[in-house]
Amino acid sequence: MIDEAAFAVPVVRPGAATETRVVTYDGGVARKRFDAVATEEPLEIRVVTASGTRTVAITMRTPGNDFELAAGFLHNEGVIASLDDVALIDYCTRGDVSIEQRYNIVSVELRRELAPDFAPLERHFFTTSACGVCGKASIDALQARGLTALESDARVASATIVALAERLRAAQKTFAATGGLHAAGAFSLDGDLVALREDVGRHNALDKLVGRALLDRALPLRDRIVMVSGRSSYELVQKSVAAGAAIVCSVSAPSSLAVSLANEFGVTLVGFIRGERFNVYAHPERIVA
Amino acid sequence: MIDEAAFAVPVVRPGAATETRVVTYDGGVARKRFDAVATEEPLEIRVVTASGTRTVAITMRTPGNDFELAAGFLHNEGVIASLDDVALIDYCTRGDVSIEQRYNIVSVELRRELAPDFAPLERHFFTTSACGVCGKASIDALQARGLTALESDARVASATIVALAERLRAAQKTFAATGGLHAAGAFSLDGDLVALREDVGRHNALDKLVGRALLDRALPLRDRIVMVSGRSSYELVQKSVAAGAAIVCSVSAPSSLAVSLANEFGVTLVGFIRGERFNVYAHPERIVA
Repeated sequence: MIDEAAFAVPVVRPGAATETRVVTYDGGVARKRFDAVATEEPLEIRVVTASGTRTVAITMRTPGNDFELAAGFLHNEGVIASLDDVALIDYCTRGDVSIEQRYNIVSVELRRELAPDFAPLERHFFTTSACGVCGKASIDALQARGLTALESDARVASATIVALAERLRAAQKTFAATGGLHAAGAFSLDGDLVALREDVGRHNALDKLVGRALLDRALPLRDRIVMVSGRSSYELVQKSVAAGAAIVCSVSAPSSLAVSLANEFGVTLVGFIRGERFNVYAHPERIVA
Repeated sequence: MIDEAAFAVPVVRPGAATETRVVTYDGGVARKRFDAVATEEPLEIRVVTASGTRTVAITMRTPGNDFELAAGFLHNEGVIASLDDVALIDYCTRGDVSIEQRYNIVSVELRRELAPDFAPLERHFFTTSACGVCGKASIDALQARGLTALESDARVASATIVALAERLRAAQKTFAATGGLHAAGAFSLDGDLVALREDVGRHNALDKLVGRALLDRALPLRDRIVMVSGRSSYELVQKSVAAGAAIVCSVSAPSSLAVSLANEFGVTLVGFIRGERFNVYAHPERIVA
């Protein structure tokens, strides 16, 4: 019986929620407090067979139940059919794995006779911009790519922010027909909608918005507010940084890594725009009451 | 100037919304009607350089603004810096591309001097289960993998379905703290919650749920209802099929490809559970009033 709880834990394991500082605006009045956001950290899944060790996936996930995640992923991909195919599931704690990565790499050792075909798995790889196997490594990798903190004197009135959610929704034509699409919008600093794109994938909607700006030679998105439906993740903030957008808003909650990335790269990150209220998770200096 | 609208369109291009048949239950009363769902189709992004053509991404997206999506993706990944790096963006319509795939492959030809390093891009590849570059090819690939239509005599009362959304939400501990997590739950046919997993990623939540069942030797998930927060996509239905779950419900809307896949693989697909009302998008025979 494989039981995660039975393992000794030499370092503090990340939890499902992370505490963060936040500035809450309500009716134009700002108040500092602490808030909890969902933890987002990369998980690398490795498969160990007689012929060696192989990374089959890196996924941004909320820590917890990681052995289940690895087992479920491998079953779905057809690599394992049942528990009988598994010899051992464990966190990879070899000497070359840093403390921060200790709970972000899961190794699944297969029964010795098994020699699965990984080729189909590789064909199914999808793209995202995550790198490294801990949040910090992901951020470091972006810096290595040449992305630097955004410097922007842009300022936005809190009254402008509260109006964005409704304006985004009102402009979502296909959402109105199907109830099933994410959106990314670019707004002026005064809150006027400049462009909106919709997609079943949140990242695709933002890629389309940025791509439109590139085709119009309107990059970087300085003096623009980027607003996305749903939640803000590492990937959405990363794409915003690459596009040069210093103010990123979402209708719903950010993840822990979205907040870290925004802090590091000079992005004003706003979430939970509801009625007269919203939260600022990073760089609140660009919001004026 | 690159303008998508300027291209002649020899075949019908997929739109952002797709019409589908649906059975709507309201207070236990069933009614057949037509409904629109968001279109989901794969898009392959190819980059053409002096040294050849290379596929850099396949993403499930809503058709439309595909050149923007390709340009925005490549800019975000650091392959292109501005429009000056682009010689041509076009749909790939070579002879070996079938009619169905004609608007699902975008080629971006770079300026001749450019020789981007694709290695970092490959490291960032994430996993998903989509295959092929049209919805039908994706479904065919699953059949080639040995997945067959689920046969199940399971029946669920409509009164059980309407209670699921509230039960899932009530059990989401981390969501209550952060407002930012997706969930996947397994319910008995009577509507009792058997297991629930949360994650920033919807697919991860479902992988964890299936992985738990695998570790408990409780696969396939026959006689279970799988319920996910948010929307249902191709990938969520595919993972449910692999886990043997014949009844899949979501709080919100399905995509077109989720509906196609559910029809093909014998999955009862329920969406938009709101109060006494819900929609059945595929195999309604398992729902009893």
